Amino acid sequence: MNKIEHIGIAVKNIESSNLLFAKLFGKAHYKTEAVISEGVKTSFFKVGPNKIELLEATNPESPIAKFIEKKGEGIHHIAFDVEDIEKEVKRLVNEGFVVLNEIPKKGADNKLVVFLHPKTTNGVLIELCQEII
Amino acid sequence: MNKIEHIGIAVKNIESSNLLFAKLFGKAHYKTEAVISEGVKTSFFKVGPNKIELLEATNPESPIAKFIEKKGEGIHHIAFDVEDIEKEVKRLVNEGFVVLNEIPKKGADNKLVVFLHPKTTNGVLIELCQEII
Repeated sequence: MNKIEHIGIAVKNIESSNLLFAKLFGKAHYKTEAVISEGVKTSFFKVGPNKIELLEATNPESPIAKFIEKKGEGIHHIAFDVEDIEKEVKRLVNEGFVVLNEIPKKGADNKLVVFLHPKTTNGVLIELCQEII
Repeated sequence: MNKIEHIGIAVKNIESSNLLFAKLFGKAHYKTEAVISEGVKTSFFKVGPNKIELLEATNPESPIAKFIEKKGEGIHHIAFDVEDIEKEVKRLVNEGFVVLNEIPKKGADNKLVVFLHPKTTNGVLIELCQEII
């Protein structure tokens, strides 16, 4: 794993949160993107080599809607940048981690992504992501 | 803010979590440290330019003990590296953020730290930290 690619934060209203995080970082988000398959609208902020991704649910079945219903707004996941996602998934499954999707799927920000189940990672939802080139 | 300095993860048993995260990252933690004033034992992993800090409570009054009691194990805070913590705190207070300690205090890993109240940051506990030189 090369670095923290981004931290995903679940928010109720992405427009007001964009303003809040712009105040926090002293600069605005640099892009927005909808991921229809996940039922989310996202926005991205750069903080040096890392990003912060805000996520708002676009329907009640979205994982983000369910997360907020259960835990409230807050940190949803950590995403680590990896060079070879298939190799990394094999290594982690061999180590006993449970993945939510063994086959990488298309996520936001032009990435292939795989999520690890929080039950095997101390309650932390971890995303592996590899840039699509 | 220069980068994500570290992500703090609350764990029940730091010894077993050290083994778990060593498997995840493919390498062991590089240091441990107790912060008596906060009632925590910590361990640190490097992931490129970022760090992961595991935190175990050393007494029931520790913020980490209370966090786990309320929310279970998981991501506790995001720490951002800043160059001038006093200037950054002034800027953020002027922007309407509420700080938990206005005067920077000594945290783990040779840092001066200030926490922002999650109620003004979408439920995210944010730490600002500046290396003590």
